[in-house]
Amino acid sequence: MSIITLTTDFGLKDHFVGALKGKILSEYREATIVDISHDIDLFNVPEASYIIGAAYSSFPQGTVHLIGVDCELTKECSHIAMLWNGHYFICADNGILSILTQKIVPEKIVEINIHSRLPEGSSDMDVFVTVACHLAKGGLLNVIGKEITEIKEINELQAVAADDNKSIKGYVIYIDHFGNCVTNITKKLVKDIAKGRDFDITFSTKSIKSLKKGYSDFTVNERFSLKDYEGEKLAIFNEAGFLEIAIYRSNPLTVGTAKTLLGLKFRDVVNVVFRAP
Amino acid sequence: MSIITLTTDFGLKDHFVGALKGKILSEYREATIVDISHDIDLFNVPEASYIIGAAYSSFPQGTVHLIGVDCELTKECSHIAMLWNGHYFICADNGILSILTQKIVPEKIVEINIHSRLPEGSSDMDVFVTVACHLAKGGLLNVIGKEITEIKEINELQAVAADDNKSIKGYVIYIDHFGNCVTNITKKLVKDIAKGRDFDITFSTKSIKSLKKGYSDFTVNERFSLKDYEGEKLAIFNEAGFLEIAIYRSNPLTVGTAKTLLGLKFRDVVNVVFRAP
Amino acid sequence: MSIITLTTDFGLKDHFVGALKGKILSEYREATIVDISHDIDLFNVPEASYIIGAAYSSFPQGTVHLIGVDCELTKECSHIAMLWNGHYFICADNGILSILTQKIVPEKIVEINIHSRLPEGSSDMDVFVTVACHLAKGGLLNVIGKEITEIKEINELQAVAADDNKSIKGYVIYIDHFGNCVTNITKKLVKDIAKGRDFDITFSTKSIKSLKKGYSDFTVNERFSLKDYEGEKLAIFNEAGFLEIAIYRSNPLTVGTAKTLLGLKFRDVVNVVFRAP
Repeated sequence: MSIITLTTDFGLKDHFVGALKGKILSEYREATIVDISHDIDLFNVPEASYIIGAAYSSFPQGTVHLIGVDCELTKECSHIAMLWNGHYFICADNGILSILTQKIVPEKIVEINIHSRLPEGSSDMDVFVTVACHLAKGGLLNVIGKEITEIKEINELQAVAADDNKSIKGYVIYIDHFGNCVTNITKKLVKDIAKGRDFDITFSTKSIKSLKKGYSDFTVNERFSLKDYEGEKLAIFNEAGFLEIAIYRSNPLTVGTAKTLLGLKFRDVVNVVFRAP
Repeated sequence: MSIITLTTDFGLKDHFVGALKGKILSEYREATIVDISHDIDLFNVPEASYIIGAAYSSFPQGTVHLIGVDCELTKECSHIAMLWNGHYFICADNGILSILTQKIVPEKIVEINIHSRLPEGSSDMDVFVTVACHLAKGGLLNVIGKEITEIKEINELQAVAADDNKSIKGYVIYIDHFGNCVTNITKKLVKDIAKGRDFDITFSTKSIKSLKKGYSDFTVNERFSLKDYEGEKLAIFNEAGFLEIAIYRSNPLTVGTAKTLLGLKFRDVVNVVFRAP
Repeated sequence: MSIITLTTDFGLKDHFVGALKGKILSEYREATIVDISHDIDLFNVPEASYIIGAAYSSFPQGTVHLIGVDCELTKECSHIAMLWNGHYFICADNGILSILTQKIVPEKIVEINIHSRLPEGSSDMDVFVTVACHLAKGGLLNVIGKEITEIKEINELQAVAADDNKSIKGYVIYIDHFGNCVTNITKKLVKDIAKGRDFDITFSTKSIKSLKKGYSDFTVNERFSLKDYEGEKLAIFNEAGFLEIAIYRSNPLTVGTAKTLLGLKFRDVVNVVFRAP
């Protein structure tokens, strides 16, 4: 009855994603399958973590999220399934769920242990498909794994407040299709540290004095229309709750983007600097 | 019961499209969702207009087409929903429906006015999703908006016949995956103006003397097989009814395309020049 | 009741794939449609053949595979439908099914002959859609075509053993999203010719001494973790049963891939050289 979402670094040219769906439908003919992304940068765990964290809340409770990024079973990396905030997640224990577990404590995590029950030659995806169909049909986590309490965490996804709370230091964790640069600075962290103070957003030699409420949140009057603001830099808390540096009506093919115009790259530092109250 | 199609400039790497589908399924679990394109050039209203005009007729009557291109609600741009030729369209009032409304008069258009009824912090897509699910379930336009009679038009999509009807002047409005260059010159316009006359198709310093009925409409005999015609330029009315300049068996990675071999770019002029009868 | 899969070179930017799905749903509202790939290199029959051969077995028996690559109906190329190994395939008779028919004899092949029964102006895709919906609903092949016993074959997909069985010569037929280079040398052929002998894999000036069982099949101990092996070249039989040359944790954007690091290109020769027993 539940939806199964797919987030992978498999790309769309090869047969991998089609085959994955074929396997799900072979096991669970009525499955509703939704692609979240198949263009995660290869083996890029932080990027996958951001995407799944930004996407999950648009789906109904009980949805099963299959994450096929860096998921080969090795001695160093087991397969896990987690119930968290009413959603199920299936992935390798490589830190990919940090962005979620740093926010809310999981209801239950299991280390998947059905590998030996599958036919010989079964792949990592065969394991994930079996688990996903089991959970989507309403099956229990305990049937497919052994409960554990700790999973790997990656800390690079967390921004940090200065000891004196005068600033927050984060960095660019994702650059989207519009060339907008998403940082790891959350709305919640800024609000907690700000305690009502205003702030500047600084990066490289540039700064932005105020936050927009929407991408088109510019003053429009008899003298200026929105068209006059095209190409302006802006900062916004995006829908996923992260501070984002953007260019109004950016286009990588024409006017440029935050990435190209402001020179922001993956992992570049962005600061929130609070003003004296 | 109805199908919901999606046409956006969101790209497929980010979580935006997956999240959009999650929202639709959260509201309408039985929805059938079909992607038309998520690779519309950013904010490119004419391109989106062409794509939706070329795609809609392959879907059954009653289909709901959600268009997420340049759709932020601003003082300059409202959200609209239209019933046209048995299909529903949901978009911003930015001219994106011109290619349709210039052909057939809409049955009904409303300015969407449900924004204040949605939870605080709802996005433009939340509005579109609510309207799309309402219409797909068989709901009425009047419930979600106030009837209006005029919407924005963009004229650049229309080719023009010379005053003496000796020629038609149009330009390239879309370049497809095969590198074929689609113009804004419709089969209907050519037929109406031609009144039986033959014509040449000219652009830059080049001309094409005749139209093909299909891409492989070359003379095949003992001396020439289709392989011998690879790389030949040709003109055709495509399935959407527009004049298209193509290269037989083009490939941007190898032999080249109409775009690369003939030097045709977006917005380049193409003429239909009628011969004396 | 059956699934319909789609494999085309239409790309995802244009409306073609969306329109194709709209046509299928117009004719068969309950269809389950699964994309295998729409990014087949244009008109590249061997590539499409590899992809469909690698994908089909993940789907349940009775699945209908529609292949829209190089499929214009011409005097030189008819439309065919095949029942093979419990699956249906619809395509042009251009050799695209060779990778399947060289392995198992088809149960039945028909030359599609419904073209004159469709409305005037119907496209090749209209024909394929009609046939696909007919078969997916459980219809018979004989209703939509005339039985034939021979179809075109392309031999380039087959690797060849030397007369003395001391080596097998194949070449790269596909380069995947990870930059891994897939050859046309099958696990079955190697096993048949090897008769227990070990072998080296050679290409250009390079050689690989042993096969991995999985991409992460490296020795891990106190001194070396898997991270230390990143960038190592390796050979593996992939899930589709073909010999593949790969780089451990390759990434075209960062560390490089088998394609970029080893200089392997489409159609480059790869040999399996058996050692004296």
